Amino acid sequence: MPSAEEAADAVDVTALLERGRTLATPVLKKAVDRLAPPMNTVAAYHFGWIDAAGNPADGDGGKAVRPALAVLSAQAAGAAPEVGVPGAVAVELVHNFSLLHDDLMDGDEQRRHRDTVWKVHGPAQAILVGDALFALGNEVLLEIASVDAGRATRRLTTATRALIDGQAQDISYEHRERVSVEECLEMEGNKTGALLACASSIGAVLGGADDVTADALEKYGYHLGLAFQAVDDLLGIWGDPESTGKQTWSDLRQRKKSLPVVAALAAGGPASERLGELLAADAKNNDFDNFSEAEFAARAALIEEAGGRQWTADEARRQHKIALEALDTVQMPATVRAQFAALADFVVVRKR
Amino acid sequence: MPSAEEAADAVDVTALLERGRTLATPVLKKAVDRLAPPMNTVAAYHFGWIDAAGNPADGDGGKAVRPALAVLSAQAAGAAPEVGVPGAVAVELVHNFSLLHDDLMDGDEQRRHRDTVWKVHGPAQAILVGDALFALGNEVLLEIASVDAGRATRRLTTATRALIDGQAQDISYEHRERVSVEECLEMEGNKTGALLACASSIGAVLGGADDVTADALEKYGYHLGLAFQAVDDLLGIWGDPESTGKQTWSDLRQRKKSLPVVAALAAGGPASERLGELLAADAKNNDFDNFSEAEFAARAALIEEAGGRQWTADEARRQHKIALEALDTVQMPATVRAQFAALADFVVVRKR
Repeated sequence: MPSAEEAADAVDVTALLERGRTLATPVLKKAVDRLAPPMNTVAAYHFGWIDAAGNPADGDGGKAVRPALAVLSAQAAGAAPEVGVPGAVAVELVHNFSLLHDDLMDGDEQRRHRDTVWKVHGPAQAILVGDALFALGNEVLLEIASVDAGRATRRLTTATRALIDGQAQDISYEHRERVSVEECLEMEGNKTGALLACASSIGAVLGGADDVTADALEKYGYHLGLAFQAVDDLLGIWGDPESTGKQTWSDLRQRKKSLPVVAALAAGGPASERLGELLAADAKNNDFDNFSEAEFAARAALIEEAGGRQWTADEARRQHKIALEALDTVQMPATVRAQFAALADFVVVRKR
Repeated sequence: MPSAEEAADAVDVTALLERGRTLATPVLKKAVDRLAPPMNTVAAYHFGWIDAAGNPADGDGGKAVRPALAVLSAQAAGAAPEVGVPGAVAVELVHNFSLLHDDLMDGDEQRRHRDTVWKVHGPAQAILVGDALFALGNEVLLEIASVDAGRATRRLTTATRALIDGQAQDISYEHRERVSVEECLEMEGNKTGALLACASSIGAVLGGADDVTADALEKYGYHLGLAFQAVDDLLGIWGDPESTGKQTWSDLRQRKKSLPVVAALAAGGPASERLGELLAADAKNNDFDNFSEAEFAARAALIEEAGGRQWTADEARRQHKIALEALDTVQMPATVRAQFAALADFVVVRKR
């Protein structure tokens, strides 16, 4: 019998992601079609289904980890993958609501290599269509009108509130000189962990899983989210712009207090202290926006020297391990467990 | 036995509004307290509980028609008024989510005689706290974890989607030269009718009322909302700034295609045509923002001459009548019916 690791290695992750996308996208498109004009068009642009001129496009819809998890979680409860589809769609709608609003709040002009909605259609449409996707996410679940759909909606609402709390923390941290590693992890747990937790359990809830099972799957998803975010924080500084679709040193340009930064600042020692002085000076520097590549590279080198890069890579592995351990507490078919494990591996080794 | 009209006249509306406010406000405050800082403070400012400096304030919390309706609707289902409280709170949270976002989208700087949230705390907080209140509204209902709470949340979600559709229509109408009376009524039904419909039925749903009863109460609330909005449109042009807290000719300054305007434009005749020419010229006039009182007064006089003011006043009465007729299809205690009727009367004769 193959070990759990070998079983995970044998999973075709691409096919698993493709299945989630194939099952969820038509239902997602149908839900978005319900929006009154021009919101349906704005949403279709956001999802990459049309370009800014309104012509059909085959945009980068993202990695589709969440839909894959949602349909897989239905199988963890012994249900058909299709049972998880409304959950997958609801989670995608809520995720994209938060992207629309966050991009506007953060002033981000690019997402997935394209201009963000507020840049193309204006701030009012970004707010409005975000609101509409949020409402639609609840609607898609509640129209199932079962007790389990009510439970699923409640969990989605809890995750959505955490998402909003995380964005509030993210904004407030930007104005602070120091953020602790614990605060950063709490923020990332809210911004990324909570919704991946919901994605990992919502199909199971719709499939009738009890709360203990749903909680264990949420735990897997939460820590998977923290692993994902640790990798994202590494890519935000050292990622290849060609792959990430972001600028070089993206998070440094945005003065983000991401994990490598806060870990480096908390580490102590000469590089840590030098980094602290530099970032404090940067915060007051009116010329910051005109910094050269070399100046960002110098800061990235200090973060690495202080151990922030290594700590974050280790943290991704720690969170990955906790996620896998949570799976062991749930009774599920070995093939389903192997697929959950393979998705977790994929998240930690991804390059974009 | 007194007639239905006499019974309504005998109701102490002030006490009815006060009861809704007294039952709902503590629960609303407790819900808002759950928000992570600084969102709890921003929300408390919005609700008028504190001033911009953070000191306790006794702000104008509005007329509180919605909470009064929600607790009354529980009694229509034979339940205690308290049963309607989570519904009242959820509806207030969703209503205030829409105010926060609409004020930002519309660029409105004042509400209830105070600076709006985006003016005081910035656009990001207005977006974020709006999102949080929306999520909280669902949470307050879903944590009841009953089938009826799920039904109530579904109705609230439908109303919220209509609210968002209405705001989308409102924004798109501002860019159009002509809007039909039907389009205007549809927009107002979405923006105002849908949530008052939900407020008028949500307590009954929580109290176990069947869908036929809930639908009839929604119909009452929907048409009450249209009556309310017709009165609001009259106040938006001819209201006393001292009472409304808005500028003179407020809706004309904002070029709103409100009912008196669209009815006047649709009426035909010399005054209607002259008004159409003037408004078309205004739309292209870069000096519009510096118009004198006399110029707005001239437009208001043309709207009145073309019959827009009278048509809107008649429309308020028509909608009021449909609302009362919807009550007749529901079995409920005569005292409760009289109270619904009295609230409807109050909405149509209000001065602010």
